[in-house]
Amino acid sequence: MLWDDVERIRAEGPLVHNITNYVVMNTTANALLALGASPVMAHALEEVEEMVGLARALVLNIGTLSAEWVDAMTKAGVAARRRGIPVVLDPVGAGATAYRTRIARGLLAEVRPTIVRGNASEIRALAIAESGTRGVDSAHASEEAVDAGRALARAHGCVVSISGAVDVIVDGAQTARVRNGVPLLARITGSGCTATALTGAFAAVNASPFQAATHAMAMMGIAGEIAAESAGGPGTFQALIFDALSGASRQELERRARIEGV
Amino acid sequence: MLWDDVERIRAEGPLVHNITNYVVMNTTANALLALGASPVMAHALEEVEEMVGLARALVLNIGTLSAEWVDAMTKAGVAARRRGIPVVLDPVGAGATAYRTRIARGLLAEVRPTIVRGNASEIRALAIAESGTRGVDSAHASEEAVDAGRALARAHGCVVSISGAVDVIVDGAQTARVRNGVPLLARITGSGCTATALTGAFAAVNASPFQAATHAMAMMGIAGEIAAESAGGPGTFQALIFDALSGASRQELERRARIEGV
Amino acid sequence: MLWDDVERIRAEGPLVHNITNYVVMNTTANALLALGASPVMAHALEEVEEMVGLARALVLNIGTLSAEWVDAMTKAGVAARRRGIPVVLDPVGAGATAYRTRIARGLLAEVRPTIVRGNASEIRALAIAESGTRGVDSAHASEEAVDAGRALARAHGCVVSISGAVDVIVDGAQTARVRNGVPLLARITGSGCTATALTGAFAAVNASPFQAATHAMAMMGIAGEIAAESAGGPGTFQALIFDALSGASRQELERRARIEGV
Repeated sequence: MLWDDVERIRAEGPLVHNITNYVVMNTTANALLALGASPVMAHALEEVEEMVGLARALVLNIGTLSAEWVDAMTKAGVAARRRGIPVVLDPVGAGATAYRTRIARGLLAEVRPTIVRGNASEIRALAIAESGTRGVDSAHASEEAVDAGRALARAHGCVVSISGAVDVIVDGAQTARVRNGVPLLARITGSGCTATALTGAFAAVNASPFQAATHAMAMMGIAGEIAAESAGGPGTFQALIFDALSGASRQELERRARIEGV
Repeated sequence: MLWDDVERIRAEGPLVHNITNYVVMNTTANALLALGASPVMAHALEEVEEMVGLARALVLNIGTLSAEWVDAMTKAGVAARRRGIPVVLDPVGAGATAYRTRIARGLLAEVRPTIVRGNASEIRALAIAESGTRGVDSAHASEEAVDAGRALARAHGCVVSISGAVDVIVDGAQTARVRNGVPLLARITGSGCTATALTGAFAAVNASPFQAATHAMAMMGIAGEIAAESAGGPGTFQALIFDALSGASRQELERRARIEGV
Repeated sequence: MLWDDVERIRAEGPLVHNITNYVVMNTTANALLALGASPVMAHALEEVEEMVGLARALVLNIGTLSAEWVDAMTKAGVAARRRGIPVVLDPVGAGATAYRTRIARGLLAEVRPTIVRGNASEIRALAIAESGTRGVDSAHASEEAVDAGRALARAHGCVVSISGAVDVIVDGAQTARVRNGVPLLARITGSGCTATALTGAFAAVNASPFQAATHAMAMMGIAGEIAAESAGGPGTFQALIFDALSGASRQELERRARIEGV
């Protein structure tokens, strides 16, 4: 149940180590804190292995990648997997440039993340790149990326969480759908990255990555729904999302959650 | 007309590629999204040329520059100009240190930006550096930098947009003035950088860089005016600016715009 | 008196040079602006010495450190001390990884900061590392770090400001306590870093680093108290902190300040 995970996060305050992009660092740190987790951001090669050893989840996000950061992500990711710490990868912009697609594929292969969380375009771009086929990606709806997601999930033994108007979460066998959220989430920067960070927090407390990924998308969507009810636009909406992540009650979560397949 | 540009941005969601400073990345991404544009932040040398090829405008901002970032700005800027994509340069802190002045001059020479947007001190510092004269800059009012702006505009074939209590926009021949805005804009970080980012969005949809620069300053000023009416201080003001950028109606824009010379 | 410092900051707008972490750059810049100071963020080796020469205080924060940034911090710090400009060091995460502890110790030794501002764990970790003893740190309350803080203060001739439910500020001889603040401050990212940045602003206008450090903690705590009164959660709280820093009146500050020992 979503609430069980939320209650555990609030009670245990799991440390979530993030190597993420410059744009959203502040936002995702605040989202993790609002949810009840303890974020740490650290990317120095000298310390990432030690830092990830203190954490209960690792979040990798290539939104503003450069070579040095990719090295840190790989090193931290490999160390996390060796210790059994769940790793969530957000392949931001995979498919937009050849470099991003290549780096995202490299992280998939070397780190073998527990959960990959992206939008339909990113997931399709990764699957196409892996299959060796060519083609301009035009996917927009998460449903159009379900086959791609499942192919990735099977090839890499991971959960794939595809965000969209309906979020679709797949592993090799199961499929879940989350019908929470509001359009305003697309009008603030980093709402996808925030969902990824929250996925890390849920993976820290739930031994099933499939459930963790699903609950994170529901939590993000519900926070958006609550925030949208009193927001006057995207600026106030952003602030109210943190309030909602922090204050959402069991009753609200159970009433609002629209989860299928978990 | 300002409204025509805003309507096009909202309808077309032009991709604006930003290579900007760490302090304002989140703020300018949110401002672009609120206005209706699609921001992307990317600075890796491996991908900037490809990324800018997807964009309809490029924004370069040297607020927290370092050597590697300057290389990326130059590479992206040259690629953008080659493809006819408008480039907006914000020479943050030119004149404050010799390094910044040198880098800003280098970008002017190598990239040949379409629009330079800075405050009076920065524009004067650049013009003084170019003319080879010496002198401590003490300019504060944008009017005191008009001659400097025009000299820069003529030397580099660009539009120069000088922010201040009154914003002044010049090219080799024309002069526009924008009398929108509120003092509170100087009490939040990155309001100048946000104006620069918005200038990129307007340049993406308006073929006249002179008009685009002018409309961007009006939009920023009007958003500030609307936000100030219900803000309790700089924190709530910042959130309300995004709301205003997103929600401002044709009627509000036409009633508030105080633009001369366009 | 706290108010005298606040009035001077608002009147003089001292330039505070920050070399800080990616997560909080925007937040601390906005906090300094809200208080009335003028923040500048600059880390390029080519310019930090020149930039710090323009400033009235330097703030060093190792929250997302990497080798290049540490070099810039050292260079700027040494230049600042040579010119008599106060330096505030925030040893974020000292004790969490060996790298951070080593870097923090290096900055202590090479820069000899005027004020060290950290939480109890960080201050204890530094003192333990300096004393050569071993031990897992489990300090949580600032009172448990007072001896450690005093040892550091004596060894390095600095003021040590330890944040917690009660903030304790020590130098070699004196001890002050600040009993302002609210628990919500721990639910937003960068509230410690913001206190550090404010400490820079107070050190810019108050010749006593001991008083400056104490007043900064009181100001931060009071802003939190004011903000918490109308916040709906951590998101709106963050925005309201900036409003409170900007708007707090003499009367409010004098009524709320709970400072002992200054």
